[in-house]
Amino acid sequence: MPEISERAKKYVSSPIRRIASLLEKASFEKQIISFGGGAPSLTPPKEIIEFLIEKLKTEPKKTLEYCSTEGLVKTRELISEDLKYNEGVDIQPDEIIITIGGTEALFDTFAAILNPGDEIITTDPCYLGYPEPIKLMGAVQKRIPISWEEDFQIDTEKLKEMINEKTKAFILISPDNPTGGVQKKETIKAIVEICEDKGIWLITDDIYKHIIFEGEFINSRKFGGYENTITCCSFSKSASIPGARIGYAYGPKEVIKKISNIKQATSLTPSKLSQMLVQKFLENKAEVREKYIKETVIPTYKKRRDVMHEELKKHGIPHSLPHGAFYFFPNFSEYLKDEEKFADALLKEKQVVVIPGKYFGPSGKEHLRLTFVSEPEERIKEGLQKMVDFLNSWKE
Amino acid sequence: MPEISERAKKYVSSPIRRIASLLEKASFEKQIISFGGGAPSLTPPKEIIEFLIEKLKTEPKKTLEYCSTEGLVKTRELISEDLKYNEGVDIQPDEIIITIGGTEALFDTFAAILNPGDEIITTDPCYLGYPEPIKLMGAVQKRIPISWEEDFQIDTEKLKEMINEKTKAFILISPDNPTGGVQKKETIKAIVEICEDKGIWLITDDIYKHIIFEGEFINSRKFGGYENTITCCSFSKSASIPGARIGYAYGPKEVIKKISNIKQATSLTPSKLSQMLVQKFLENKAEVREKYIKETVIPTYKKRRDVMHEELKKHGIPHSLPHGAFYFFPNFSEYLKDEEKFADALLKEKQVVVIPGKYFGPSGKEHLRLTFVSEPEERIKEGLQKMVDFLNSWKE
Repeated sequence: MPEISERAKKYVSSPIRRIASLLEKASFEKQIISFGGGAPSLTPPKEIIEFLIEKLKTEPKKTLEYCSTEGLVKTRELISEDLKYNEGVDIQPDEIIITIGGTEALFDTFAAILNPGDEIITTDPCYLGYPEPIKLMGAVQKRIPISWEEDFQIDTEKLKEMINEKTKAFILISPDNPTGGVQKKETIKAIVEICEDKGIWLITDDIYKHIIFEGEFINSRKFGGYENTITCCSFSKSASIPGARIGYAYGPKEVIKKISNIKQATSLTPSKLSQMLVQKFLENKAEVREKYIKETVIPTYKKRRDVMHEELKKHGIPHSLPHGAFYFFPNFSEYLKDEEKFADALLKEKQVVVIPGKYFGPSGKEHLRLTFVSEPEERIKEGLQKMVDFLNSWKE
Repeated sequence: MPEISERAKKYVSSPIRRIASLLEKASFEKQIISFGGGAPSLTPPKEIIEFLIEKLKTEPKKTLEYCSTEGLVKTRELISEDLKYNEGVDIQPDEIIITIGGTEALFDTFAAILNPGDEIITTDPCYLGYPEPIKLMGAVQKRIPISWEEDFQIDTEKLKEMINEKTKAFILISPDNPTGGVQKKETIKAIVEICEDKGIWLITDDIYKHIIFEGEFINSRKFGGYENTITCCSFSKSASIPGARIGYAYGPKEVIKKISNIKQATSLTPSKLSQMLVQKFLENKAEVREKYIKETVIPTYKKRRDVMHEELKKHGIPHSLPHGAFYFFPNFSEYLKDEEKFADALLKEKQVVVIPGKYFGPSGKEHLRLTFVSEPEERIKEGLQKMVDFLNSWKE
C-alpha cells in the first residue's frame, strides 16, 4: 500500500464511535444499559414522516433531484422565519446554508476561517467533534476549564486573557455536550462583547437549542455580533432524525458564500429528501416542532433527567444539574483515578455503558459522561444502581 | 467581519453551480434548452421509492436513527456482493465505506492520502470536482491532455513519464465527465501496471460505470492493484437519485479506516434514509438496478445521444462519439476562439445552455461540453439547430 497522508496518520477515531461500533457487534446488546452515545430515542413527529411519504408518492423524481449547494430556497426561507419568530434574530435566506448535519456545518466553517497556526478556544471538557477537524485545518485548540462546582459557567475574564494575536475564534455551545451546562444570559452577553471587541469569530453551536428543561434558549445575536458570528445547527436532536443528516449554518453572507464553495467539495449539495422532513417541521411558524418539543421531547427527557438526578443525589455523587442537552457530567474523584479502566470494567462486568470524562479533555479526568435519553426511567435506576454497586467495590 | 482563511480565499465556486444558480433565478426558465449540468432526468425505479415508503410507515424511528460512520453492515454487504457478481472483484464489507455521494468519497480519499506538495495526475480536460479539494489538501494537480482525435484515450507512455518522486496518485475516470470517453481494456491494464510499478495510488472514479452504451464496464482490479486502488462511486447517476446524496468508496482496509476517521469530521455518518433506497436497488443480485438500467436508463439516454450525434455530424462539428456517461465534448476551433463568450451569448440570445470547455482545463479551450440527458430528442434537435445557426453568424 502506498503511504497515507500525515494528516490521516494524526487523525484519531472518536472513542464514542468506537464504543458504538463495539456495541453493534456485541451479542449481549439487549441486556446492555446505555448511558453512552447521545442519540435521540424518540420516534420523529408523525407529520414530517407523512409529508415525506406524500412527496415520495406524488413527486418521486423532484424529491430526489439535485438542488443548489446552499439548499432549497424554501428550506432557507423557513429557517429564516423560524429564527425571527422563535429567537428574535434577523437572518436572510442567503445568509443560511443547509448542511449534512451539524458536523458538516462545523467542518466547513472551520475550513472557511482557520489558517494553519491559528488558535481557536473551546471549553474543557468539550464536544468530541471539535478537536479532529481543527487539527485537519492545522489550527491549534486552546481550552478554558469549566467545572461542575460553577455549574459549567465560562469564566469570561479568563477567556479575555486567553485571546492573543493568534486567536481566530471561540466556540460557544450552550446547552453543552458533554456537561449539560447552559450559559447564563450575562455570560453570553459578555462573550459576544469580548469576541466583538477582540475582532475574533464567535462560533455558536446551537445543536441543543430546543432541549432546555429550565429557562429558555438565548440566541447570542440578541447581544449583537452579527458581523462576526457563525452559527452551526442541526435537526438531529430536535426532530429526532439524526439518520437524515440535515443541519445548517448561518452567518455573514460573505462567509456563507465561502462555506458554500467548500461545501461543493465536501458534499456538493444537501439531501433534498431530508429537506422535505425539515420543511414540514418548520412550516406555519414551526407548529409541528413546537408541539413535538413541548408535548413529547421535553416531558420524556425531563422525567429521565430527574430520575438520574435523584439517583445521583441519593448516592451522593457530586454533579451539577443539567438544564439542557442530554448529559450529566458527575465528578467521581472520590471513587476513582482512572475512569477509563472503570468504564471498560463496568461494561464488561455489569453491561452498563458510560463514557470516560478524559475523552473530552484534561478537565474531564475523574468524571463520567452519562446520557439520560437512551433509556426509560426504570432502566436508568437499574443502571445507576449497578454502577454505584460496582463503584463501591472498585479498587484500582 | 474577521478574516476568513487563506484556503477559503483561494477556493472558487464551480462555474456549473453558478450557471445552475443563474437558471434557478431565470424567469424564462421554461424556454431554456439545457445542454448544461449532468443531472439525471429520469424518475427513479418505483421499487426503491415503494420500499422507502414502506420503511417510513413501519419503522419510522429506525429509518431515521444514526448508524455507524462506515454505514450499515447490510448496505456494505450488498455492495460487496454486487461488486463480486457484476464486476468480478473481491471486496469485503469492511473495505467499503458509505459516503455523501461521490463527492464526499473523493474529498475524504484526497484527505487520507495527499500531503501538501504532493502531485496528483488527472486527465485534461477533467471533472470540475477535482481541482478544488486537491487544492484544499495543499497538493498539486498535474494534467495529461486527452483529445477527441484519439477518442479521449489516455497516453500511458506520457503518464509513465509524468510520474516522479512527488507523484502520489492518478485519477482514472471511465466513462468520463466531461468527454464521455471510455478507456480501452489495454489502456486500463497499462494504467494499473504503471501505478503498481511506481507505487502510487490509483483512484478510480466509477460514478458512470452503469452508463455505457457500447461494450461493458471494466473494473480496474481485474488487472490487479488491490493494494493501491481506491474507488469512489455513487448511486446518483445509476439510480437517478442525486438528491439522496449517497455513494461509497472502497479500497485497502487500512485506508478505508483512515477515510472513516476523516468522515467522522466531514459528515459523521451517512444518511440511513438514503441507504434504504440503495438496499432495495441492490438486493437479489441488483435485480432492480439491472432492469432499470437495461429497460429505462440506457434506451432513453442512448436515443438522445444518437440524436445529438446525428445533428453534430450533419453540421460537420468535429467530435468523438461518447460510449458512456452523459456528454459530448466537440471541438469548435473552426468556429470560435472564446467559447465562454459564445456560451454566454447563446444563453442570452437563444436560451440554450452549453458549458465552456476551458472550465475543465487548458485542453478544453475551443470546446463545449454538451449534456444529452436533460432534454428529449425533439428539443435536442431544436437546441442544436439554434446553436449551429448562432455559431454560423458568430463573430468575435
